Amino acid sequence: MREFSIEQVKITDPFWCRYMKLIRQEMLPYQWQVLNDQADIVIEKERDAAHIPSEKSHAIENFKIAAGLAAGEHYGMVFQDSDVYKWLEAVAYSLQQSYDAALQELADGVIDLIAQAQESDGYLNTYFTVAAPERKFKRLYQSHELYCAGHYIEAAVAYYEAVHNKKALASARALADCIVAAFGAGPGKIKGYDGHEEIELALLRLYEVTSEEKYLECSRFFLYERGQDPEFFKKQVAADPDKSVLIEGMEGFSTSYYQVHKPVLEQETAEGHAVRVVYLCTSMAKLAFLKHDEKMLAACRRLWKNIVTKRMYITGAIGSTVTGEAFTADYDLPNDTMYGETCASIGLIFFAHAMLQNESKGEYGDVMEKALYNTVISGMALDGKHFFYVNPLEVVPECSKKDPGKSHIKLTRPAWFGCSCCPPNLARLLMSLNSYVYTVRDTTIYANLYMTGKAEFNLGDHKVAIEQQTQYPWDGEIHFTVMAEGNNSFGLGLRIPAWAASYHLMVNGELCLTAPVDGFVVLHRRWRTGDEISLELDMEARLWAANPKVREDVDRVAVQRGPIVYCIEGVDNGADLHLIRLNEAAEFHYGFAAEKFGGAGLLTVAAEKAVGKKEWGESLYQPAVSIEYQPVELHLIPYYCWANRGENEMLVWLHKK
Amino acid sequence: MREFSIEQVKITDPFWCRYMKLIRQEMLPYQWQVLNDQADIVIEKERDAAHIPSEKSHAIENFKIAAGLAAGEHYGMVFQDSDVYKWLEAVAYSLQQSYDAALQELADGVIDLIAQAQESDGYLNTYFTVAAPERKFKRLYQSHELYCAGHYIEAAVAYYEAVHNKKALASARALADCIVAAFGAGPGKIKGYDGHEEIELALLRLYEVTSEEKYLECSRFFLYERGQDPEFFKKQVAADPDKSVLIEGMEGFSTSYYQVHKPVLEQETAEGHAVRVVYLCTSMAKLAFLKHDEKMLAACRRLWKNIVTKRMYITGAIGSTVTGEAFTADYDLPNDTMYGETCASIGLIFFAHAMLQNESKGEYGDVMEKALYNTVISGMALDGKHFFYVNPLEVVPECSKKDPGKSHIKLTRPAWFGCSCCPPNLARLLMSLNSYVYTVRDTTIYANLYMTGKAEFNLGDHKVAIEQQTQYPWDGEIHFTVMAEGNNSFGLGLRIPAWAASYHLMVNGELCLTAPVDGFVVLHRRWRTGDEISLELDMEARLWAANPKVREDVDRVAVQRGPIVYCIEGVDNGADLHLIRLNEAAEFHYGFAAEKFGGAGLLTVAAEKAVGKKEWGESLYQPAVSIEYQPVELHLIPYYCWANRGENEMLVWLHKK
Repeated sequence: MREFSIEQVKITDPFWCRYMKLIRQEMLPYQWQVLNDQADIVIEKERDAAHIPSEKSHAIENFKIAAGLAAGEHYGMVFQDSDVYKWLEAVAYSLQQSYDAALQELADGVIDLIAQAQESDGYLNTYFTVAAPERKFKRLYQSHELYCAGHYIEAAVAYYEAVHNKKALASARALADCIVAAFGAGPGKIKGYDGHEEIELALLRLYEVTSEEKYLECSRFFLYERGQDPEFFKKQVAADPDKSVLIEGMEGFSTSYYQVHKPVLEQETAEGHAVRVVYLCTSMAKLAFLKHDEKMLAACRRLWKNIVTKRMYITGAIGSTVTGEAFTADYDLPNDTMYGETCASIGLIFFAHAMLQNESKGEYGDVMEKALYNTVISGMALDGKHFFYVNPLEVVPECSKKDPGKSHIKLTRPAWFGCSCCPPNLARLLMSLNSYVYTVRDTTIYANLYMTGKAEFNLGDHKVAIEQQTQYPWDGEIHFTVMAEGNNSFGLGLRIPAWAASYHLMVNGELCLTAPVDGFVVLHRRWRTGDEISLELDMEARLWAANPKVREDVDRVAVQRGPIVYCIEGVDNGADLHLIRLNEAAEFHYGFAAEKFGGAGLLTVAAEKAVGKKEWGESLYQPAVSIEYQPVELHLIPYYCWANRGENEMLVWLHKK
Repeated sequence: MREFSIEQVKITDPFWCRYMKLIRQEMLPYQWQVLNDQADIVIEKERDAAHIPSEKSHAIENFKIAAGLAAGEHYGMVFQDSDVYKWLEAVAYSLQQSYDAALQELADGVIDLIAQAQESDGYLNTYFTVAAPERKFKRLYQSHELYCAGHYIEAAVAYYEAVHNKKALASARALADCIVAAFGAGPGKIKGYDGHEEIELALLRLYEVTSEEKYLECSRFFLYERGQDPEFFKKQVAADPDKSVLIEGMEGFSTSYYQVHKPVLEQETAEGHAVRVVYLCTSMAKLAFLKHDEKMLAACRRLWKNIVTKRMYITGAIGSTVTGEAFTADYDLPNDTMYGETCASIGLIFFAHAMLQNESKGEYGDVMEKALYNTVISGMALDGKHFFYVNPLEVVPECSKKDPGKSHIKLTRPAWFGCSCCPPNLARLLMSLNSYVYTVRDTTIYANLYMTGKAEFNLGDHKVAIEQQTQYPWDGEIHFTVMAEGNNSFGLGLRIPAWAASYHLMVNGELCLTAPVDGFVVLHRRWRTGDEISLELDMEARLWAANPKVREDVDRVAVQRGPIVYCIEGVDNGADLHLIRLNEAAEFHYGFAAEKFGGAGLLTVAAEKAVGKKEWGESLYQPAVSIEYQPVELHLIPYYCWANRGENEMLVWLHKK
C-alpha cells in the first residue's frame, strides 16, 4: 500500500486570502522594484550601526555584474543574493496557486540571469564572484556562501515544482554538486560548515525532489560535523591570508552565536542567533524524519522544549537581545529591548512543521499558530509594503528615538532594510501557507491550522478531499466536510489548542467525546462523502500570565482571544500605558470591525489608570504614597495590527490591579 | 573687609577615614603597581567589545617612551595618560592630609617623567607624541587631547598646592599656554573644542591658582564655542588626510553625544555621554560663578533640573544606556541595562559642588550626598582593590553572563579595566572629600555634608573653627561646636536633607525653630567659643517611590534610611528576588553590624514571597491565576555594600504587595 500523502491544499480563507492577494498584487511587484533599485523609498538600517549598508538594494545589479552583463562593484551585505532567492521562492508559490504568465516570464528571466552569474563549476555567489573570488569558502563564519546557496536551492526547487523550469533545478543541482565536492570528511575537502545554517535544510529539500542520496548525506555531514571542532571558524580565519572582515561588528561573537560550541546532539539549550538556531533545528528535524534518526530527534525535542518553555515570547517571538539577534538565558524575556525578528518566528514555524512530520503533538501546531497570527504577520504593514524586522512587546517612542540601545525598536514599519532578510521571507512563508495546514502521518490526516479551504489527499490508491469552513481566527467554529470514495478508513486529527478553555466536537450531529491525545483529537473511522465534523473552540478573551520566573512580566497579564494576542496602543488609550491597571476579573467585550485594519476583532474592557497626583510636581522620588486610580475604558487591538497608525506607545503585558 | 573663606577642613570621621586609609594604604600603592604593569591581575573589558584594550595598563611605560627613556609603542586607550594624572591628583590630596616623604618622592619622579615627556612647546600627550604626532588636534572628537591636558592641569595644580612643587605648576602652565595658543577665535587658531569636556574646568582651576585671565578666557571660549557649529567635528574629520579612527565603535554617535548639538546656553536637557555632560556642567557652573555670568547660571540650573528631576537614579547614578554611556529620555530609567558609571556620579558631585558656590540650595547637597553614599562608594570593593565602572540597580547573574547586551553589568568588581577612568577618579574624589563639606558664601558658612571633623574658616581678619561630631550616616545626630574669637558674626547654614521626615535643632540647649529656606536652616548670630548646635535628623527607614512616569519602577519601592539606599541580595534572601513583595506598611528593624562590610547599618523587614506554584511545571504561559505568597524575613544591606560576597542577584526597587 502506498503511503498516504497530501495532494494539494487550496486556501480560500478570507483572512489569509487578503494577505496572499496583497503579496501577489503589492508585495511581490514592490519587492521586485526594490531589488532593481527602482522603488522610490528610504532604505533604513535595522538598527544604528555604521557598517550596515542602506543606500540601495543592488541585488539584481549584483547578479548582472557577476553575469558579465553590467559593469560595477558588488554592493550590499555579503548575503544580498538571498533577497532575490527568497523573492523567487515566493513567486514560485504564487504561480503554483494562481498562474500568471507575465510573472512567470519575469521569474524565468531571473533564473536565466542567475544561471549566467553561476560559475562553470556550479559555484554561485555574486559577492565572491565579483569582489573576492580568491576568498571562496575561506571565511565561512561570515561568508554566508552556503546560506545563500541554500536559499537558491530552496527557490529553484520551488520554482521547478511550480512551473517545471528544468534550468532552475539543473542550476540548483550544479550548485549543490559544487558544495558536495568541496565539503566533507574526505581528503582535500573542507571539514566545516556555514556560519549561518540554511544549506542543511535546502539540501534535504533537494533530496526530496531528486532522491539523490548525496544531497541528504551532505546535509547530514554538515549537521553532524557542526560543533565537533568549536575552533573550526577561528582556524579558518587564522589560515586566511586576507584579514579583512566580511561583515563588521561580528568579531566579538562567541562560538555559541553560530551554534558551534558543541556538537548539535549535545546542545541542550537554544543559544546564539535565533534565526540560525531555528534553521538548524528545522534541518535536524527533517533529517531525523528522513533517516529515522532517533538521536537527532531527541536533540530536536530538547531544543524545542527549551525554546517554547523558557525562551519564547507569548507572541511566538524569539530572540531576547539585539546584540547578536540572539537568545540569552532561560526566562529572560525583556519586552522593550528584545529582538523578536520576523525571520526567527518564520523559522520557528519551519521547525514546528518539521517536528509535526516526526510526531503529532498539538504543541507544535500551537506554536506554529502563535507565531503565525502574531509575530509573523506583525512583520508587515497593512499596505504590504512596509515591514518590521524586530517585533517588540513594549514600545515607547521617545526611548526608541533617544536610547541608541533601542534603535532596533522601530516605531513604524520601514519600507526596506539594509539587511532585508525579513520582507521576502514573509512573502515565501505566507505564499506557501497551504503546506502547513495539514500533516499526514501513517494513515492519519492531522489538521494543524484552521482556515477555510479545500485539501486533497492520496490515500494509497484513491483520494479524499476535506473542506474546512471557518471564520477563524475571529470565530471558534470550524466545519469539516469529507468528500471521499472507495475505502476511506483513515484518521482525522484535530488540534485542540492549549489556549481553548473548552471545546465542543460534533460528528454528523453527534457529540464526540474522544479525548485529545498530545493536543489532537484523532477520529478513526470509515469516512463517507458528506460526513460533517464541527469543532467549536472556546474563544473567550482571557488573561494570560507568564511563568513567575519571567522577571519582566511579574504582576502583569497579557490578553489573548483565540490565537490572537492583543495589545494596547497610545492612539486609543492615551499616553503612559504603564499606568493602566487591569483587574483580573475584567470582562471583555468583543466586536469585529470590518472597516478597521482590513477587518479585525477588537476588544474593550473596563480598567483603571493611575492618576498623576499633583503632589509629584517636578519631583522624581518621594516617600511612597498610595496611588489613586480612575476608571478608563481600554481599547485593545490584535498585536499584529500595531503601528499601522503612526508612531505611538504600545504594550502587550498590562499591569494587574 | 576680606571675603570669608575656608582655611582648611580636616575629616576625622570613622566612616570616611576607613575609606581614606584604604586609599592611602591600599588603593594608591595598588594603582601605582597597575600603572606600572607590576600588579598580577586580570584586566577586564568594561563590556564585550573587540576594540577595548585589556592586556595591561602601560600608562607609565607610555610616558617613558614619549620621554625617550624607553623604546616601544604606545599601548592602551588614546586617553591612557589620564589614569596617571588622576592617580597623581589623589596622591596630592593624600599628601596634603597626611605627609609621606616616600610618596612625595615617588610623585616628584612622576612629575619629572611627565615633564620629560612634554614637548618643547608645552604639548603633552603620549599617544600623539609617540604614535601620531602629525595628527595633533586634528580629530578632537575622539582624541581626548584636551581631556588629558585638563586632567594633568588639575593634578599639577593639586600637587603644587599640596607640596609646592613648582615644576608641576610650570609644566601645567606650559601645557595650558600651548592650548591657549592653538585654540580660539583668532586667525590661525582652531575654533573648536575637545569631544570630552574636562579642559574647561581645569583651566578655571589653573586660573584660580595663577589668576591668569587668559586661562579663564580660554575656558570661556571653549564653553561658548561649543555647539555653535554642530558640524565642527565632522568638518575636522573631513579635513584630516588620515582616515583611521582613534577609538573604534564611536562612528555612529550623534552630535548630542558630545554636547555639540547646540550652543550650551541653549541646551535644555542632558544629552549624550553622562560623564561629559556633568564635566561640562561643572565648568559652566564654575565660570558662571567666576564671571557672574547669569545666562550661564540659568543654563546650569536648567540642566541640573533636567538631570535630578527626570534622569537620575535614586542612588545618584546617571546614564540610562550602555550605548554611548549616555542619558536617554526623561523618566527613562531602566534598572538592569543602565550604565550609572562611577565617574558620572563623581562628576555629578563636581557639578553640585560648583552650583553651591553660586547659590545655597539644599538640593545640591542632597544630590551630592546621594551620589556619594550610594553610587560613588559602590564603585569600590571593601578591599580597595576592585572597582565598578557600572552601578546597576538590578542584577541577575545569568543575564549578565548570557546576554551580550548586558556584558557591562558586572557581577563583582574587577581589579582594573581596559578603560580604567573610574578607579583613580574615585581615589581623587574621596581624598579631596574635605573640600566638599562646607561652602562659604558672603558671610555664611554652609554645611553641605555631615561627617566628624574640624574646619577652620577665615572670617575677614580673624578665624573661626567649627567641629562636627556625628555617627553619620548611621545616626542622625550631628553636633557642632564653635571655636571663635573676636567679631564672630556669621551665618551657619545647616542642610536639612529632603529625605528627613522631620528634624530637631537645638542651639545651646534651646530649641531652634528657624525654618529652612531652600533646604538650609541658616543661623545668623554672633557666635562664641563653646556654642553648641545639635541637629537631629529623623533617620527612620522609609519606602520611596519613583515618579509614576518612570515605567521601570511602577508598583515598586526603594528603601532608604538617612542618605543610604538599601538593596537586597540573593545571598541573604534566596533566588528570584523579583518574587518578593514588600507591604507599604512594613516596619523595618535597624541594627549596626560592626563586623560586616567594614561596619554597616543593616535592615530587616517582614515581607512575602510568591510561591512557585506546582501547576506551572514546565509551562511558560498559563491563564492568569492568583498568586500565593508565604512570609519571609527580608535582609537589606546598604546599596554600596553589594557584590562583596561573590556573584548573586541584587535588587534595589522592590515590588510592592
